[in-house]
Amino acid sequence: MKKKTKVNAAILIIGNEILSGRTQDTNTSTLATWLNSIGVKVGEVRVIPDIEKTIIDTLNFLRTNYNYVFTTGGIGPTHDDITAESVSKTFGLKYEIHKEAYKILEEYYKPGDFNKGRQKMVWMPENANLILNPTSGAPGFSVENVFCLPGVPSILKSMIGGLTNSIIGGQPILSLTISLRTVESEIADSLTKVQNDNTDVEIGSYPFFQAGKLGVSIVIRSEDKSKIDSCNSQILKFINKKKIEVVNR
Amino acid sequence: MKKKTKVNAAILIIGNEILSGRTQDTNTSTLATWLNSIGVKVGEVRVIPDIEKTIIDTLNFLRTNYNYVFTTGGIGPTHDDITAESVSKTFGLKYEIHKEAYKILEEYYKPGDFNKGRQKMVWMPENANLILNPTSGAPGFSVENVFCLPGVPSILKSMIGGLTNSIIGGQPILSLTISLRTVESEIADSLTKVQNDNTDVEIGSYPFFQAGKLGVSIVIRSEDKSKIDSCNSQILKFINKKKIEVVNR
Repeated sequence: MKKKTKVNAAILIIGNEILSGRTQDTNTSTLATWLNSIGVKVGEVRVIPDIEKTIIDTLNFLRTNYNYVFTTGGIGPTHDDITAESVSKTFGLKYEIHKEAYKILEEYYKPGDFNKGRQKMVWMPENANLILNPTSGAPGFSVENVFCLPGVPSILKSMIGGLTNSIIGGQPILSLTISLRTVESEIADSLTKVQNDNTDVEIGSYPFFQAGKLGVSIVIRSEDKSKIDSCNSQILKFINKKKIEVVNR
Repeated sequence: MKKKTKVNAAILIIGNEILSGRTQDTNTSTLATWLNSIGVKVGEVRVIPDIEKTIIDTLNFLRTNYNYVFTTGGIGPTHDDITAESVSKTFGLKYEIHKEAYKILEEYYKPGDFNKGRQKMVWMPENANLILNPTSGAPGFSVENVFCLPGVPSILKSMIGGLTNSIIGGQPILSLTISLRTVESEIADSLTKVQNDNTDVEIGSYPFFQAGKLGVSIVIRSEDKSKIDSCNSQILKFINKKKIEVVNR
């Protein structure tokens, strides 16, 4: 079966702690790197507060505009964990005890430890598909194209592996980085020409500081390796002409 | 003059490099921490690609729904830097050489070094207000309530100091963190009661791992110190009763 060539996704980070600056989000980068590797392009990321109406409205927009939506945060046991109930309302589904999740957590905890707080984590939209959690027991879940993951980065990472089979990606997006000992303004004109000659390739230019010296990384991205190679040749040509040093990063 | 009590902002991160997972965004946390300290609550963050129509549509939504909008990225010299032109189109303003910015960069660079690439950085919406850049010369700018900053974190940080006078904040949002040697499910019920008794205070619960041990940080946020103190007392009460240890983080 030929893979779809364009598959996209949105990431929805749910949590006041990111908006207050208290917590540095790293889940975006984790999810985006993984999604790119399986051929899913991230079109947009939103960070929103723990407010039910905001979650529902945002989910309704994203789930109809992207092939997949991945949410992080708000599926724990405390009062500010409202993702599961909000997703239920988004899809007009009952919010109820998920029998399979209940069984998993009942076995996970010592007898007597599966208290009311922990039982909140098995309340989900009816018939949700579970996303298994090898780190801390409590599963995530998906409904249609919306996949709900926890906010704790180490737990989220451990759950991604089990997700790959549920996501039908497109052609993997390939990328090539050329790092140069130069500044952006020295290469801007030549790089613009390469971009104009290759409008279906994504060429980015990113300044960096390394060991006290300035540099620029050029990133070429496309599903088509031959197009990346062609841009690479054109870039190396003007770099040689300008006598700019290529560096390892 | 009494300060407005509710002032909000949105952050708009413009850049394919964040969406591809290549670059870890840290500007959200920098901006959010600063904004909170001057009484501006961040209501939403969006990360979008370097696509003109997306930038314009998103800016038009955010600038009419929030008191302030802060953009990062896309104001450098290369072809993928399209923020200034997109902001011009958003406001229906000419995109032209900003004389003051031109003068600043002409003086900043050595004679002959102010080349065409660098000159792109002085093209801005007409009559934009400059945001001075003590690190690398090229200024950011603002139009009405939209403030455009660079994507490089160290440069962005150096420009925030000069911005504070342009932003009229509300009452600073105060916060208190109580870190506990427990797990969320042990305190979920009691914490829900405190939240229900204090609906105008934001209480968040965040699990952490430290030195191989699990813990939970409870974060209480409000503009009103007395309300924070009251929540704090109620929380300490149930913590003592449950014999939960308070830890330093």
